[in-house]
Amino acid sequence: MKDQSVRPGTTRRDFLRTSLLAGGAAAASASVSTSAQAAGDPAILEVQPWAQALGDGVDARPYGFPSPFEEQVKRRNVDWLTADPVSSVNFTPLHDLDGIITPNGLCFERHHAGIAEVDPAQYRLMINGLVEKPLIFTIEDLKRFPRENHLYFLECAANSGMEWRGAQLNGCQFTHGMVHNVMYTGVKLRHLLERAGVKTKGKWLLAEGADASAMTRSIPMEKALDDCLVAFKMNGEALRPEQGYPVRLVVPGWEGNMWVKWLRRLEVGDQPWHHREETSKYTDLLADGRARRFTWVMDAKSIITNPSPQAPITHGRGHTVISGLAWSGRGTIPRVDVTLDGGKNWYPARMDGPSLPMSLHRFYFDFDWDGRALLLQSRAHDSTGYVQPTKDELRMVRGENSIYHNNGIQTWYVNNKGVAENVEVS
Amino acid sequence: MKDQSVRPGTTRRDFLRTSLLAGGAAAASASVSTSAQAAGDPAILEVQPWAQALGDGVDARPYGFPSPFEEQVKRRNVDWLTADPVSSVNFTPLHDLDGIITPNGLCFERHHAGIAEVDPAQYRLMINGLVEKPLIFTIEDLKRFPRENHLYFLECAANSGMEWRGAQLNGCQFTHGMVHNVMYTGVKLRHLLERAGVKTKGKWLLAEGADASAMTRSIPMEKALDDCLVAFKMNGEALRPEQGYPVRLVVPGWEGNMWVKWLRRLEVGDQPWHHREETSKYTDLLADGRARRFTWVMDAKSIITNPSPQAPITHGRGHTVISGLAWSGRGTIPRVDVTLDGGKNWYPARMDGPSLPMSLHRFYFDFDWDGRALLLQSRAHDSTGYVQPTKDELRMVRGENSIYHNNGIQTWYVNNKGVAENVEVS
Repeated sequence: MKDQSVRPGTTRRDFLRTSLLAGGAAAASASVSTSAQAAGDPAILEVQPWAQALGDGVDARPYGFPSPFEEQVKRRNVDWLTADPVSSVNFTPLHDLDGIITPNGLCFERHHAGIAEVDPAQYRLMINGLVEKPLIFTIEDLKRFPRENHLYFLECAANSGMEWRGAQLNGCQFTHGMVHNVMYTGVKLRHLLERAGVKTKGKWLLAEGADASAMTRSIPMEKALDDCLVAFKMNGEALRPEQGYPVRLVVPGWEGNMWVKWLRRLEVGDQPWHHREETSKYTDLLADGRARRFTWVMDAKSIITNPSPQAPITHGRGHTVISGLAWSGRGTIPRVDVTLDGGKNWYPARMDGPSLPMSLHRFYFDFDWDGRALLLQSRAHDSTGYVQPTKDELRMVRGENSIYHNNGIQTWYVNNKGVAENVEVS
Repeated sequence: MKDQSVRPGTTRRDFLRTSLLAGGAAAASASVSTSAQAAGDPAILEVQPWAQALGDGVDARPYGFPSPFEEQVKRRNVDWLTADPVSSVNFTPLHDLDGIITPNGLCFERHHAGIAEVDPAQYRLMINGLVEKPLIFTIEDLKRFPRENHLYFLECAANSGMEWRGAQLNGCQFTHGMVHNVMYTGVKLRHLLERAGVKTKGKWLLAEGADASAMTRSIPMEKALDDCLVAFKMNGEALRPEQGYPVRLVVPGWEGNMWVKWLRRLEVGDQPWHHREETSKYTDLLADGRARRFTWVMDAKSIITNPSPQAPITHGRGHTVISGLAWSGRGTIPRVDVTLDGGKNWYPARMDGPSLPMSLHRFYFDFDWDGRALLLQSRAHDSTGYVQPTKDELRMVRGENSIYHNNGIQTWYVNNKGVAENVEVS
């Protein structure tokens, strides 16, 4: 925090001059008297319309919603990305958010047969296969097991997938917006499996969704018995329909496709099932035609959310706050580095807020911008010592055929007007 | 976690028998074939309608909303409590929530002239009074100072206020629902005051809101320079209008009335202002006619949210999860005790989730219910060693005239059917 270099704020005299003279402050001056005498009065602020009338009462909004002035803050999809929006993705507006909690209404969506609208009274979860006693649970049954709460990121394996072949999409919402961070309430999957009694041969678990795509993924029993949750709440309230209401699987640190939504069945088996979503999809095709399979863990990654193509610097030179997110499927993020010149010089970012394993971390870099063009990058270090690689380093090992597991360093070019663009540097 | 005493879950045979015979499972059996052969088939679950049709695509909900099955989860107000809903309160549905995050749409509201709908482009924050340089900030100005994120509870001083004279309201939403817990993004108030330059005589700060009630509270400079935030985001996104959009004051651990919403002015002075909200209101009238004043800190408190009058035990005997919240304006909550018999025997609750200062804490108590009536209470201990008192202990010292700062232990009577009621025990 280089406080002596901070230059925001204006004296009242400066403000009034700006209000009266500059076009950029037209909206502000519209509500302000233009008579010099009134303008010199601290009462200048008292004519604003919301100080003169009563607003909505406490009975008006049983469930609240954002200000109409925030309508641009929304999930966005990309029309050309998929054939049909019922089997597609939209993106979290990372550039409009701060801190580490993603509000439920803005968590990116990925579904394969549209949003299943499940009646919780009819909901059932079955455990079958290599177990002593097949079981069927209602939601009320699930809520009788010991509950836990954890803040975890969920990242789609295909996040940043378009960037394997070069800079494609102009905005961190699109390049990195298939991630969200939510506090889940649920019960350990282990408790349910212990109740059913996993047989000695039971080494794998099939998780199956209740939507029309019947999403199915194989999960090794070791992970299932470790930290997986069967969750029914997100950020305090019931899961949202697009996030698997009433029950989803939580697979901390692992690719989002495995966090099966509208969870209806858990089958215990002695080997993986090799379903569509772990063969044709969610495998990483290498340059030589072979594919990496079962690449579940999301490696350490970071992104500068501000400035970015959708969120330029609009205030001109002087004190500027760079902000971003970092995360790792293997633990916490003790350190993020930031560069202003495409990697020639790196500076430690200021890590902010609680540091929790397999959760987003927020970082800031406060600096005095001299108005010169910038090549911004961030580089995450996780608690295992792993350092986020460059995109080129990843391509050397993995080729450019895959669309999954691209955790390479992202570059934004910021011109001398503060406008940002997605670019590649070598 | 007494795992051996847990009895939820049924075998598939049990489930089918229940589905076919019991009226309580009518909703479930409606979607299930009643032919004995089909009922014996694991495919029983595959006829549910949401597995047979495509749902909404990713372009349908740019900003999401809860499932229609969750419509009962909402803020509620009490008609007879105030003369008009524009100067009133509604309550957080604590019994429907879990974990420690309150979703933005469910944070209780208290306003004195309705919800001010402020245009952020016209928003200004003024600092004046005993400062070297009066300043006016736009929102963009504020965002150029170093930002921080903190999860803090906000509790109205009048929370549980109706309970001073005995058990009044039947539900924790009404007895304890003037509290919420949100991650705020903002800048330290200290940075803004340092920029303006507080004069030596400046010992107090007046915070003033931009709504039609012009809410004004005096804050000692020591607190203002310590941990207060000028906040513009809650749980990642912009503040909601009813929570002070675009900018509110955050006064960690202190009564909610001081967290001035729609913040428009901060005046530095040499003494408190003795405004309406710190004289006629928000003072604690004692039995002898004197009033405690400037009782800012919210002392340690706890509440069992489940079971509670709005959330009975519906599953009958056997494994039961008691859940609740605890908080302190003076630090963290290392310990909560729970009693099932009105205080004869106390047991330590299981503390869950991150323990952060001046934040809600979630606790659970997992036990095997034998079906006998219960007198449930919880008792919080905070990190200073303070122990939550009984209501009678509070009344001995403070009398029964006040409506503020009632942090006494709450009792729910749960009958042998699981129905809960607000009662007093002596």
